[in-house]
Amino acid sequence: MTTHGTTHSGSSTTFDPWYDHYADRTAGLSASEVRALFAVASRPEVVSLAGGMPFVSALPPELVTASLARVMRDSGPQALQYGSGQGTPELREHILEIMALEGIRGSVDDVVVTTGSQQALDLVTKLFIDPGDVVLAEAPSYVGAIGVFRSYQAEIAHVMMDADGLIPSSLRESIAALKAAGKTIKFLYTIPTFHNPAGVTLSWQRRIEILEICRSNGILVLEDNPYGLLYFDSPPPHAMRSVEAEGVIYLGSFSKTLAPGFRVGWALAPHAIREKLILANESAILSPSAFSQYAILEYLRGADWRAQINTFRSVYRERRDAMLTALQEHLPEMSWTVPTGGFYVWLNLPPNLDSKEMLPRAVKELVAYTPGTAFYADGTGRQHIRLSFCYPTPDAIRLGVRRLTAVINGELELLNTFANTGQLEAVHESAHVSNPPPNIN
Amino acid sequence: MTTHGTTHSGSSTTFDPWYDHYADRTAGLSASEVRALFAVASRPEVVSLAGGMPFVSALPPELVTASLARVMRDSGPQALQYGSGQGTPELREHILEIMALEGIRGSVDDVVVTTGSQQALDLVTKLFIDPGDVVLAEAPSYVGAIGVFRSYQAEIAHVMMDADGLIPSSLRESIAALKAAGKTIKFLYTIPTFHNPAGVTLSWQRRIEILEICRSNGILVLEDNPYGLLYFDSPPPHAMRSVEAEGVIYLGSFSKTLAPGFRVGWALAPHAIREKLILANESAILSPSAFSQYAILEYLRGADWRAQINTFRSVYRERRDAMLTALQEHLPEMSWTVPTGGFYVWLNLPPNLDSKEMLPRAVKELVAYTPGTAFYADGTGRQHIRLSFCYPTPDAIRLGVRRLTAVINGELELLNTFANTGQLEAVHESAHVSNPPPNIN
Repeated sequence: MTTHGTTHSGSSTTFDPWYDHYADRTAGLSASEVRALFAVASRPEVVSLAGGMPFVSALPPELVTASLARVMRDSGPQALQYGSGQGTPELREHILEIMALEGIRGSVDDVVVTTGSQQALDLVTKLFIDPGDVVLAEAPSYVGAIGVFRSYQAEIAHVMMDADGLIPSSLRESIAALKAAGKTIKFLYTIPTFHNPAGVTLSWQRRIEILEICRSNGILVLEDNPYGLLYFDSPPPHAMRSVEAEGVIYLGSFSKTLAPGFRVGWALAPHAIREKLILANESAILSPSAFSQYAILEYLRGADWRAQINTFRSVYRERRDAMLTALQEHLPEMSWTVPTGGFYVWLNLPPNLDSKEMLPRAVKELVAYTPGTAFYADGTGRQHIRLSFCYPTPDAIRLGVRRLTAVINGELELLNTFANTGQLEAVHESAHVSNPPPNIN
Repeated sequence: MTTHGTTHSGSSTTFDPWYDHYADRTAGLSASEVRALFAVASRPEVVSLAGGMPFVSALPPELVTASLARVMRDSGPQALQYGSGQGTPELREHILEIMALEGIRGSVDDVVVTTGSQQALDLVTKLFIDPGDVVLAEAPSYVGAIGVFRSYQAEIAHVMMDADGLIPSSLRESIAALKAAGKTIKFLYTIPTFHNPAGVTLSWQRRIEILEICRSNGILVLEDNPYGLLYFDSPPPHAMRSVEAEGVIYLGSFSKTLAPGFRVGWALAPHAIREKLILANESAILSPSAFSQYAILEYLRGADWRAQINTFRSVYRERRDAMLTALQEHLPEMSWTVPTGGFYVWLNLPPNLDSKEMLPRAVKELVAYTPGTAFYADGTGRQHIRLSFCYPTPDAIRLGVRRLTAVINGELELLNTFANTGQLEAVHESAHVSNPPPNIN
């Protein structure tokens, strides 16, 4: 048995004839926890609070259908052809309009269209990171960004955050410690608005302070802002890029305000960097999809896209409310962040619970979430859970939180059974909740 | 003047505050000669024999329009959503069918859909190349591949080819020399069928021999085949992947058989490599465009795509014929390759002519081409020109070749004027051609 098991677990080395051919950077290439969840969460009986899929069904399909018809009627040959490596100029003009909603003034020449903002992340990292260079990122940070940074052998240094986002004093301390250790810090990666996964928003004062810290330390800021227009009440503070052009690369996306299926995002970069970004884009994909760009262009021209963003806001606000109310009802002793926009709530588990170890039991109880460990490069995060309210209906969210509550209670009871200290019992008592999950298969 | 000029040419270093922040690999990032030509060639008065744009107008727009309508009717929410990092399973099934036309049998599990086959090139290179590793490639080779290899700091070793493609004995010699020099060879990049830019096709016997050479030397083969279905008379030899699965990564594309605007290509890879490719794809772009994939899927389901490929063949055959006839008529003393499919003719200039230096004069005469230097990593290729017959009409091709002839004759006369040896005069005499370009502005 042992021999067989050893052979089997070693199969990727034993049976891959190219095993010793891979580049060093592939050591950082591993399946994220979010990825493994996609398969599980796609089973219809599971309530998934795991993925970050936008609720595209809130987009009336006729708006897209009409746009597509206009593309083929007015721009067929261009939409079907290779295009500019920088992206279609007309779309870049519209992108400026969209960014203006968050206080950004830029030149159409400095926008580079990419295959989702994920690809912009990849290109920026490729441009700046030599193996061992440091990327500063919030603790926690976006799992897909951590994956990109690792794939170029960056060292990721997490910086503490609180309910107002990244903590400036922690940033200063991190920079000082890293510099003292002789490290090369290339950029700060941040999601200042409706953070993924933390759900918090960086205050205006801190935006200014963090820009100043980065400026004085020669650190570029990579501002990732896919959710900024999806606020629930009042608009969030303006983008960091609105006050600082030379030190910020700004990433935007149509994935959350329109649809991710087109894979269109963009970077707004300082002039010199933008030239390199275009070359890197051409090297990677020749040119972003002309068809996708024309489809979005016709949508922006022909549909009331501002009203559609309002529709998305209403949908997500209702779901956020459903989640917060359910958490308050079922898990009142626990703590979580209260997002004022975006897709995510960040839940803190009681001590001694492990979100990663608990996940299989949760899936058995037909609820999925993303364990906090996915959002840290250093293996921490076990006491946290990311809950997504973007995709499931309010009813499904309530059901999911009830199921999650049962899982957490079950874990706490298990801990209690094996506990021989008063401390663990106290944890169990304080977090006990009463609603069992409905017995739905 | 000199001072001003110096300051100006140094602006990218002087005025880029992030100049010392870039990764080492950006040293290999430079604008390709093809790229610079795109701007020039887009002026309507210029006959461009430079770009490799397929003639998408040969695709009836109603076929696409109907496919798009079915996407939104039957698969809207999936097409607008994020998808699998590997690509839609239904599309991968169809890709197997397409590859079967070139003798390839594979598993749907081993196909990875990418943002054009260019992105597959990028991902494979990212997976395998550490700085200084060697990629073997034909001399000449695809400019976009050279760019990717450079962007990961590969060393590119060109291997000689002739009218039957890559020369096996040259490959053996290159491998031996590189190994003797202590180099690590990671893969052979080859376009065996209707080569870009050389226009030649690797014979069947050589395919077998080259696979054997690579196998015995532990060298992976990266077979790039965007043009294989675009043959003009009889089908070319089957793909190299048809005889060897474990040692070949095969790249395919819809850019030439349907339309590049969707940016959909694929890799068929050995199992272990395929897993890493998916992870690299997810890291780079999360997932390939679901919308593009559904659009192509509906096209393949609803349109007679085999008949459409026949249409493309007829269009390109007529253009190839127009180009070869014009070359024979105007430049009978020169030599060129005779493609039996694909997009390109490779023209050899007389000695002492320089295709790169001649280009500005050609553009002044309203004809554009790609100088051979674009297709070599080592600065050679000045005696060659790539002529594309894919996009311009037969009449434009004839006009373009006439203009090119005038440019070449002008160059030869110039050479002759300054020549003081009998040798140069002989060159001039032998290459002299009579038709001046029509004076069209």
